[in-house]
Amino acid sequence: MGLLVVGTLAFDSVETPFDKADNALGGSGTFIAIAASYFSGPVKVVGVVGEDFPKEYFDILERYNADLEGVEVVKGGKTFRWAGKYHYDMNTRDTLATELNVLEQFDPKVPESWRSAKYVVLGNIDPTLQLKVLDQLDNPSFVVCDTMNFWIDGRRDELMEVIKRVDMLIINDSEARQLADEPNLVKAAGVIREMGVRSLIIKKGEHGALLFIEDVIFSAPAYPLEMINDPTGAGDSFAGGLIGYLHKTQDVSAENLKRAVIYGSSMASFCVEQFSIRGLEDLSDLRINDRFREFVRLSAFDEPTA
Amino acid sequence: MGLLVVGTLAFDSVETPFDKADNALGGSGTFIAIAASYFSGPVKVVGVVGEDFPKEYFDILERYNADLEGVEVVKGGKTFRWAGKYHYDMNTRDTLATELNVLEQFDPKVPESWRSAKYVVLGNIDPTLQLKVLDQLDNPSFVVCDTMNFWIDGRRDELMEVIKRVDMLIINDSEARQLADEPNLVKAAGVIREMGVRSLIIKKGEHGALLFIEDVIFSAPAYPLEMINDPTGAGDSFAGGLIGYLHKTQDVSAENLKRAVIYGSSMASFCVEQFSIRGLEDLSDLRINDRFREFVRLSAFDEPTA
Repeated sequence: MGLLVVGTLAFDSVETPFDKADNALGGSGTFIAIAASYFSGPVKVVGVVGEDFPKEYFDILERYNADLEGVEVVKGGKTFRWAGKYHYDMNTRDTLATELNVLEQFDPKVPESWRSAKYVVLGNIDPTLQLKVLDQLDNPSFVVCDTMNFWIDGRRDELMEVIKRVDMLIINDSEARQLADEPNLVKAAGVIREMGVRSLIIKKGEHGALLFIEDVIFSAPAYPLEMINDPTGAGDSFAGGLIGYLHKTQDVSAENLKRAVIYGSSMASFCVEQFSIRGLEDLSDLRINDRFREFVRLSAFDEPTA
Repeated sequence: MGLLVVGTLAFDSVETPFDKADNALGGSGTFIAIAASYFSGPVKVVGVVGEDFPKEYFDILERYNADLEGVEVVKGGKTFRWAGKYHYDMNTRDTLATELNVLEQFDPKVPESWRSAKYVVLGNIDPTLQLKVLDQLDNPSFVVCDTMNFWIDGRRDELMEVIKRVDMLIINDSEARQLADEPNLVKAAGVIREMGVRSLIIKKGEHGALLFIEDVIFSAPAYPLEMINDPTGAGDSFAGGLIGYLHKTQDVSAENLKRAVIYGSSMASFCVEQFSIRGLEDLSDLRINDRFREFVRLSAFDEPTA
């Protein structure tokens, strides 16, 4: 029954060579929920904020059909904050500040009626918390786990347990190399799958994404954007588009996962066109499907006739 | 009439984390000619060697149907030598030595009967020499130019003249950024095309290649290799497969260029599987077309039915 997302709700302060934004609505849970909302609704959100999280931000999430019953508001607490600065090439960034605040004591509670959720994204948070969420789920059909270098280093054992229990792991290329301790990306994917990962997506930023499932490897291109305004949330938007499409179609076959990767890539491409969540706002099925078809044009070629 | 290649014939000494080879047959002209030979023959080669270039290496080239009338043998001269060492990730390398030798005084001469060649690759050599070759051609149909960072820095004016006069420029992603002075690859492609480049291919190594022609952008995946033994010659093999297929089909439409990119990528994937030219040896149409179809499987996805 439904689609559940656990992740952060955050204030993001982002600086790029071209612009900056302070205390914008961010967090993995936010981007995932909004991206997924275009395919499936309502999206059940499990997360935590402080009392400083403004009504305006709750309103935005609710406009995208997020069910916020699972979002704990900590009395007197302060919301998680992240500040980062992107380099000239927009592919690399420095984290300027991470204030965990209410995340430090976060003990995620999945509301009773949500425990039967069938499609689940464990957004990028401490694997210890991802495990706590997994423990509260009844019998999910398809669970996606996102993570990052910080947890690969600092919570390796917990992360290894998470990835054995989920259906799909999404990481980026440098994280895949780090997790597998192997520079060749294809070999790294093999090592990671032997850790117990049933399906694996390796995101490569401006170079697209690779999906590994069963004996299938699928290479998805990146949408060729001339202007990337803010890469923050791209990976979360990818995960949101992917899970939203899977939930909508109730089909986790390899062929449908390929389409889900393209929808995920489409949502990521919208996301990075503008600061914060603005690129995800006010999209339509028409625009999303147009972008999907642009991915078709970008990658299709015919076999020789002879 | 036919396919002409100008490039280097070289002794390559290559070291990787796994193996090494000394004085192996190498050079842009060598890889291009052998890769192209599977599609079109004979390939007319313009280049220069010293007296130390062994009969054994001439025999290899002739086995692949290379016409070596345009290869000058300099009396008492020494053949061009390159030595390089690949890093652990196999994506980056250090050049340990470059001995130009006979290349220093090279004055390429296209045999009279070859000047009507219709399909031409200007392999990676000094743009001054590429211009000299262009000046000797009658009315080629399709000329491809390969180059490298060294010439973008050191022969910028000459290179700018070359790329205005050819039909296609092939460079890698860091070279594209360097040539355009622009970190965004899509924007860089636009800048380069405004320099007068009709079609552009940006090679991205393990991430595939991008083709820009007319209003088309085509993103080709890389073949997912678990073992890369020697990346030397990959770009040249790509160019060789591409021009060989174009020459064979006599079709330079955007749709056929996409296929040519996939054949080029196929030849590059064979090349890097073994040291020196060994990965290109003894291939068959069957194996090449099988690999082409693997690229199809790797990148194909269906639109949603709903």
